[in-house]
Amino acid sequence: MAVYTDITDAELEAFLGEFDLGEALSCKGIAEGVENSNFLVETTRGRFILTIYERRVRAEDLPYFLSLMQWLAQHGFPCAEPKAGRDGAIQRTIRGKPAALVEFMNGLSVRRPTAAHCREAGEGMAWLHQASAGFPGHRVNDLGHAVWPAIFARLQDEAEHLKPGLAQMIGRDVEEITAAWPEDLPSGTVHADLFPDNVFFHNGRFAAAIDFYFACDDALAYDIAVALNAWCFEPDGSFNVTSARALIAGYERRRALSPAEKAALPILARGAALRFFLTRLNDWRSTPEGALVKPKDPLEYERKLAVHRAGLHLFDDEAQGA
Amino acid sequence: MAVYTDITDAELEAFLGEFDLGEALSCKGIAEGVENSNFLVETTRGRFILTIYERRVRAEDLPYFLSLMQWLAQHGFPCAEPKAGRDGAIQRTIRGKPAALVEFMNGLSVRRPTAAHCREAGEGMAWLHQASAGFPGHRVNDLGHAVWPAIFARLQDEAEHLKPGLAQMIGRDVEEITAAWPEDLPSGTVHADLFPDNVFFHNGRFAAAIDFYFACDDALAYDIAVALNAWCFEPDGSFNVTSARALIAGYERRRALSPAEKAALPILARGAALRFFLTRLNDWRSTPEGALVKPKDPLEYERKLAVHRAGLHLFDDEAQGA
Repeated sequence: MAVYTDITDAELEAFLGEFDLGEALSCKGIAEGVENSNFLVETTRGRFILTIYERRVRAEDLPYFLSLMQWLAQHGFPCAEPKAGRDGAIQRTIRGKPAALVEFMNGLSVRRPTAAHCREAGEGMAWLHQASAGFPGHRVNDLGHAVWPAIFARLQDEAEHLKPGLAQMIGRDVEEITAAWPEDLPSGTVHADLFPDNVFFHNGRFAAAIDFYFACDDALAYDIAVALNAWCFEPDGSFNVTSARALIAGYERRRALSPAEKAALPILARGAALRFFLTRLNDWRSTPEGALVKPKDPLEYERKLAVHRAGLHLFDDEAQGA
Repeated sequence: MAVYTDITDAELEAFLGEFDLGEALSCKGIAEGVENSNFLVETTRGRFILTIYERRVRAEDLPYFLSLMQWLAQHGFPCAEPKAGRDGAIQRTIRGKPAALVEFMNGLSVRRPTAAHCREAGEGMAWLHQASAGFPGHRVNDLGHAVWPAIFARLQDEAEHLKPGLAQMIGRDVEEITAAWPEDLPSGTVHADLFPDNVFFHNGRFAAAIDFYFACDDALAYDIAVALNAWCFEPDGSFNVTSARALIAGYERRRALSPAEKAALPILARGAALRFFLTRLNDWRSTPEGALVKPKDPLEYERKLAVHRAGLHLFDDEAQGA
C-alpha cells in the first residue's frame, strides 16, 4: 500500500504518447497493491491504472500475467485489460522499470465478507477458471506444494523464534500435507491469491477480479482452498462453515466439483494455509525495522493452520463422495 | 503522501448515505497531501475527494477552510467545492475524525515549472485574491511574521545542530526581516502555500488550486513571495528571475501591484523563505526515526534564504517605484 516510484507530469505525458489513448486529465498515485506503484490516470479517452512493477513480480513473468489478463478480458471475464501501445506491445518501461497501462475497473472490495459475498466470489472464481480454459500461457506455481519443504527448511529457526515449539509443529504439517497431497485433480490456470481485496463488488454482485501476479498452473480446487482461508475465517479466528459452503456452492453454480475435488478441499486448505504462513514468515523476517510497508502477521495463518489440523467438515457425509 | 486512516466499504457506504450524491462505484486511497488521508470516490453522481483530517489541520480551523473553498467555488474560482450532507453541514465525521467530501478537480501539477507555468500560476493566484474579496471568514496567519521570532527562539539549538554558525545567521535574518517588514500593504485572504503541487494545469493553462489548509489573512503580496520561492528556484539552487518576472506579470494580468507591493517583494520573499525554513526545521526535529513520511529538507530553504540575503532584483529600476 504505497507508491514507490513517483512519476512526473513530463514522464506521464511521454508514456501516454506511446498509446492512442488521449491526453492526461489527471493522475493520482493510489494506495493499492503492496508491491507495485499504481496510478489512476484519466485521459480524454478513458480511465486507466498505470502500474510500475517494483519488486517480487519478476520481469520475466510479466508477459504471462499481462497476456492472461488480456485473454480473460477478451473472453468476457471482468478483469482489467492491458492496453497495447502503438507498437503493439503491452509491456512497457518507465524509468527503466517494467510498466503497464490497464483499464480501470469499477467496484469496491469488502472488508468483512458475508456468506452472500462468499457465494459471489466463488461464482466469480469458477467464471475465471472457465474463461481461462484454452489460455496458451503456462507458469509453474513457484509457491506451490512442491517447494514448501524447501521454504520451510530455510525458515525453521524463524518459526521457532516466532513461537517456541512452532518449528516442530510446522515441520509435521509439511510432512503430512506433502504426503497427502492429491496429484490428479483437474488443473488449469488459477488466480492463487483471490483474497477479498482482490475482488470488486457492485450492488452485492461479483464485479471484477484484480491482481493476477500470483496466477499460475495448479489444481483448480487449490484456488478454492486459498479463498476458503481468505474469506471464511471470522476476526476471532473461527472458521465460518456457512460462508465456506456458500463459496463452494457459488463456485458450483458455474462449475461442478468432482467427488475427488470435494474430498481434497480440507488438505488443500491446510496446504494453502501453510503456503501463506511460510511466505508471511519470510516477509516478516526480511522486512527491515521501520520499513514503509508493514508485513502481514504470519501468526494469523498459523492459527488457520491449527484449525485445519483438526480437520474441516465442509459437506454432509453423503455428499462427501470419497 | 500517505493514507493514515483506512476506511471500509461499510464505513464508506454509511458516510455517502449522509449525502444525496448517489452510491459508491469505486474508492481508492490516494497519495496526496502530506498530513491527511485522501480517497478518490466515484459515485453514481460524480467524482469526489474524501478527506479525513489527521493532524496539523486543527478541527477548529476547518469551518474556515471549508467555507473558504465553498465561497471560492461559488464565486467562479476553480477549486474543489465541499459538498453538504442532507443536514446542510459540510464538516462531517468518520471514525471520530473530522472529514469532508469535496468535488474532484481535473488537472495535473507540474514537477518542473517553466516560466509559462509561472505566468499561469501568478494569474491563478490573482484570480484567487479577487474571488476571495468579500469572503466573511477570517483567520490569523499563525505561521506569519509576528511569530517567527518566537519559533526561532525554540529552534535555535536545532539550527546550530543542522549547520554550525547557522543559529547566528538565522537570528540576524529574524531581526532584519522583522525590522523591515512592511505593515501597510493591501491585505486579504491568501493561500499561503501555493506550491507547484497545489496547482493543477490543463493544456498548459491554470486549471485549479487545491489544499487551502494554510489559508489566512495576510498581505496579498506575501502570497506572491511564497510562490516566488516555490516556483522560481532551479534545482541547482539558483533563482530564475525570468520565471519570477513571469509569475508577477501573470499576477498583474488580473490585479496590478502597487509600487509599495513591488518594493516589498524582496523582503517578503526573504520572510517567506524564513517561514518555510523554520517550519521544516521544526518538522525535521519532531519526526521520529523511521517515520512513514519523510520530512522535507530544511536546508533547501536555508539556501533560498541565502539568495535573498544578497537581495533580489525583480524589476527594472524605473518600475521599482520605491
